[in-house]
Amino acid sequence: MTVFRGKILHFVDDPAIAGERAYVYLDDGALLVRQGKIEQAVAWASIKDDLPGDAVTVDRRGRLITPGFIDTHIHYPQSDIIASYGEQLLEWLERYTFPTEQRFGDPAHASEVAGFFLDELLRNGTTSAMVFASVHPSSVDAIFEAARTRGMCLIAGKVLMDRNCPEFLRDTADSGCAQSAELIARWHGRDRLLYAVTPRFAPTSTERQLELAGKLLEENPGVLMQSHLAENLDEVRWVSELFTWSRSYLDVYDHFGLLREGAVYAHCIHLDALDRRRMSETGAAMAFCATSNLFLGSGLFDLDAALEHGVKVSIGTDVGGGTSFSMLRTLAESYKVAQLARQRLSPLRAFYLATLGGARALGLEDRLGNFAPGKPADFIVLDASATPLMARRMQSASGVVEELFVLMMLGDDRAVAETYVGGKQLHER
Amino acid sequence: MTVFRGKILHFVDDPAIAGERAYVYLDDGALLVRQGKIEQAVAWASIKDDLPGDAVTVDRRGRLITPGFIDTHIHYPQSDIIASYGEQLLEWLERYTFPTEQRFGDPAHASEVAGFFLDELLRNGTTSAMVFASVHPSSVDAIFEAARTRGMCLIAGKVLMDRNCPEFLRDTADSGCAQSAELIARWHGRDRLLYAVTPRFAPTSTERQLELAGKLLEENPGVLMQSHLAENLDEVRWVSELFTWSRSYLDVYDHFGLLREGAVYAHCIHLDALDRRRMSETGAAMAFCATSNLFLGSGLFDLDAALEHGVKVSIGTDVGGGTSFSMLRTLAESYKVAQLARQRLSPLRAFYLATLGGARALGLEDRLGNFAPGKPADFIVLDASATPLMARRMQSASGVVEELFVLMMLGDDRAVAETYVGGKQLHER
Repeated sequence: MTVFRGKILHFVDDPAIAGERAYVYLDDGALLVRQGKIEQAVAWASIKDDLPGDAVTVDRRGRLITPGFIDTHIHYPQSDIIASYGEQLLEWLERYTFPTEQRFGDPAHASEVAGFFLDELLRNGTTSAMVFASVHPSSVDAIFEAARTRGMCLIAGKVLMDRNCPEFLRDTADSGCAQSAELIARWHGRDRLLYAVTPRFAPTSTERQLELAGKLLEENPGVLMQSHLAENLDEVRWVSELFTWSRSYLDVYDHFGLLREGAVYAHCIHLDALDRRRMSETGAAMAFCATSNLFLGSGLFDLDAALEHGVKVSIGTDVGGGTSFSMLRTLAESYKVAQLARQRLSPLRAFYLATLGGARALGLEDRLGNFAPGKPADFIVLDASATPLMARRMQSASGVVEELFVLMMLGDDRAVAETYVGGKQLHER
Repeated sequence: MTVFRGKILHFVDDPAIAGERAYVYLDDGALLVRQGKIEQAVAWASIKDDLPGDAVTVDRRGRLITPGFIDTHIHYPQSDIIASYGEQLLEWLERYTFPTEQRFGDPAHASEVAGFFLDELLRNGTTSAMVFASVHPSSVDAIFEAARTRGMCLIAGKVLMDRNCPEFLRDTADSGCAQSAELIARWHGRDRLLYAVTPRFAPTSTERQLELAGKLLEENPGVLMQSHLAENLDEVRWVSELFTWSRSYLDVYDHFGLLREGAVYAHCIHLDALDRRRMSETGAAMAFCATSNLFLGSGLFDLDAALEHGVKVSIGTDVGGGTSFSMLRTLAESYKVAQLARQRLSPLRAFYLATLGGARALGLEDRLGNFAPGKPADFIVLDASATPLMARRMQSASGVVEELFVLMMLGDDRAVAETYVGGKQLHER
């Protein structure tokens, strides 16, 4: 058994709903890890005299131990186009995304990028992610293989895209479905890997493809679902032209049975109350992608409306439309988006969204997101004094809530001292 | 003579107006520095065989040498409240700003913070700044003394504030004016230091105080001026209640003769066309403070409207309302604000605004902002491969414009390899 001693924080519920009961904070805590799993998180004083003979104590006093971050929306093939200049969504796809994704037909290239991508996630304290691959099945093999090697719980899927895209990236309704089914058979449930059916977004799939996607989900319980929804006004208009029968953008996905537990929709900016109610009813979740929404000028996510309608919300970096792999930086921009909308994102809720909120969005609360006994020991050790400015700011900060705010407003990869997956240290600053 | 060899970029005009003629870029350049001043910036090939015997070459090939950044709006007494939670402008002032500024009556405290503050600027590549001190004259002494020690060109002033603030920070119209006059006599024009008359903003000054501020400027040619303008809608409303005779917020400053060359107004978000025209006519400048405007939820600066009306624009970090000392990070958020407003901030224009644009806003183009012969050698050496992500992204970047975009979107203090002031290295990463 290994005992990690330090400040410990994790969530059991959403602070916006459960308030003080939403989290457990131990100022001098002990995280007990045995065979890669959480045994418990308790006060150091309560166990220090009863540790078994084989216990090894890792002293991280002064640092904050939290569950690893869960990034619920990110495109690994776009790692190399992060910070590309000058476009909004639809032009961005044409100019940057499609050309770069073309290269992922090459397994060697896919594998090389997948390795960099996962190491960058770990460097930023992200231990699980829901990931878009490219349209190529081999791109899914590459990212799953890289995640398997690292022991990570990773959700990924092959992009389904059978129209309104360059021919070199186009599948068909049938081939896309058949390839997805093969990938599910090969990867879903293997070690900690899970498959997600992945239509890029409504405009690049025919109705037949969306219908088959719905069937895949019906036939494969436990398989997840990911797509984009209502990111940009031109996109919303386009969807209404392509699916003239639909009440709204969301209604397209609804029609084909794509709203459900474990379905995560990125962005969800331009929705109405009926849409939000429907997401809540079906258990579908929203991935709030602040850096991307700002970088592509998409608009402001409405956190309060999601809460009011009881929709599950999680955080996505959305690299490469997003500008950082860091969930801390993404939380900072989430706070700013809320401020612009005259809403408030508290530090506690921010860290909830980045951990347990992510697990709930994915429908994986049984295995991810906090330090409940028996869950795999995916956690990070945070250093709120990682830069001269943070160290100075921490001198006048008091309590864990202020520490969280310093971490999210001033922190980046430097604030992640260590990252553990399944109890194994995979990154040390 | 010292010759700095590397990629060299500097501006001679605004790229939004002069296009390709706005900048000089030397892929293999030489920056010749003698006795702390720029001698010239030329192609290495053109001088390498004619260097004088005493020339020392500093090889920075692969790195980008640009003029140091000019931060035209920042509060040094707020260094310790950066990243304080949860408020918009007026509540922010009450809850965080005023209590922290109270401590600057203590010269030892002021001096300690001033040293940290300037070192943090230098670490981020900022070589000149226009700085708010507190209401205490000793706070101005502290920041000027710290800047003098470092040889920096720094502009600062004592805050004028004779109403609508806690009594412990209140001056009077007469005492504020007399103290400012003393500070001007003591500091203005000493070494590279310049004074700025500094009413915090219209709501905290009586008309008498604003009138005396105008007189101070009349009587002291060359003295600069700084204040805040139209940051937040509640603030704008408050001004209209306090100055019922004024056509607009800007009109208050105009009425008292506070619009002029060398007057820099922070924020300038909620203005109309008449206001912008008037700023243009008078030569007053706008400091665009993106991270602060997002963090405090103030609104979106309108870059295109300023350009259209010919108003000078520069960049301010606005620490502590701003969330970073880094001008690179501030440019990233400036880009995002522009995107949200469906405008574009090109990388070239961004770096112009952060260098020569700043010098022009301050009316100091004769001595700051580019590598014109005879100017003090204030420059930085930038490393666009400072992090694993940046290094990878640079592999697919081609040309200096993409390099600038990588620096501003992905860079932070780590991208500043070295900072030189007056030819002297004051920071090395």
